[in-house]
Amino acid sequence: MKLYSYWRSSSSYRVRIALNLKGLAYQTQAVNLLENEQQSPAYATLNPARGLPSLVLDDGTVLTQSMAILEWLDETYPTPPLLPPDPILRAKVRAAAQVIASEVHPVNNLRVLARLKAMGHDQTDTVAWMKHWMVEGFDAFAALISPTEAFSFGASPGLADLCLVPQLYNARRWGVDLAPYPRLVAIEARCLALSAFDAARPEAQADAT
Amino acid sequence: MKLYSYWRSSSSYRVRIALNLKGLAYQTQAVNLLENEQQSPAYATLNPARGLPSLVLDDGTVLTQSMAILEWLDETYPTPPLLPPDPILRAKVRAAAQVIASEVHPVNNLRVLARLKAMGHDQTDTVAWMKHWMVEGFDAFAALISPTEAFSFGASPGLADLCLVPQLYNARRWGVDLAPYPRLVAIEARCLALSAFDAARPEAQADAT
Repeated sequence: MKLYSYWRSSSSYRVRIALNLKGLAYQTQAVNLLENEQQSPAYATLNPARGLPSLVLDDGTVLTQSMAILEWLDETYPTPPLLPPDPILRAKVRAAAQVIASEVHPVNNLRVLARLKAMGHDQTDTVAWMKHWMVEGFDAFAALISPTEAFSFGASPGLADLCLVPQLYNARRWGVDLAPYPRLVAIEARCLALSAFDAARPEAQADAT
Repeated sequence: MKLYSYWRSSSSYRVRIALNLKGLAYQTQAVNLLENEQQSPAYATLNPARGLPSLVLDDGTVLTQSMAILEWLDETYPTPPLLPPDPILRAKVRAAAQVIASEVHPVNNLRVLARLKAMGHDQTDTVAWMKHWMVEGFDAFAALISPTEAFSFGASPGLADLCLVPQLYNARRWGVDLAPYPRLVAIEARCLALSAFDAARPEAQADAT
């Protein structure tokens, strides 16, 4: 498998963690978002939404959208599971994951920031914008997860943790105060102590600068 | 079941369609987004992300996040299916659905528009913002779906169609030119000819004004 990825892309980071947790070997093809490589005609043919990541299987099949890729990985390589077996608990894990994947990340990605800058906003405005959506998202995420277990929903990391850890990385980059979220920071520390998360960290990628 | 819904909320609209397709009876509890009812303490207790929809099951379990609710509905009430059985095709349906659910809708919802207005933008700016993300999303969606089948991915409607139809409703409200998307408009017409979609339309809801 080949993963089209950018070191700081949090949706790429989610999929890197999952591939590592599942013990799957993959090559990485860097796509530099800062140089708009995702807008190249060649990449747009691969991924019409021009986003990251894309996962190309050995038979050439191209999968896009991180949350769809994660569901496919869990269906195809079920061990260790990213989702629990109980349908209600699956829905709760997916809901927490989607607070980050659908409510925070899309409003904070590079193309949105570029648009805000094109509309005349400076760095102060964009930092305030980033922080606003992250704080709203972390408040909701913290209220939706289990209050006591080692990870967001159990004794092993799952889909919600895969979304949380990259978003906390972003939060630190943008200066979000994480003091109100000790539970989230504790989960993050347990995740990053695992080699699957550690090897997926942005700084561990070959295209990190 | 009770669905907390707003007539024009496209994520509520998705879930209304799915409940109807599955033949499930439900009550509707209107939450008026224009009056910020989703910010009330009572609603925030139910749904910490203060979004719509929320689905309250008969035993009091609360499910949130439309895409998590749709996956739960499909796992729990599998007929008719919203996703095909083949894992690769499931991933492709989910990817198209998420172009709308993760890339268009979150950037265009009311709370983002309110924030843009608070940052000094007028109606002209917000209309341009809305159209920009919808056009990008429809371009990607059209490239990701089947080019020939009756619905986005087959002979019956599924998860991608449930996301498409409410987004096209929004597109018309905001004046997006749909002439470049004859395939999407044809799929929409086939969907709206079905009673499950027709009964879920915003105008058919009791809280429509």
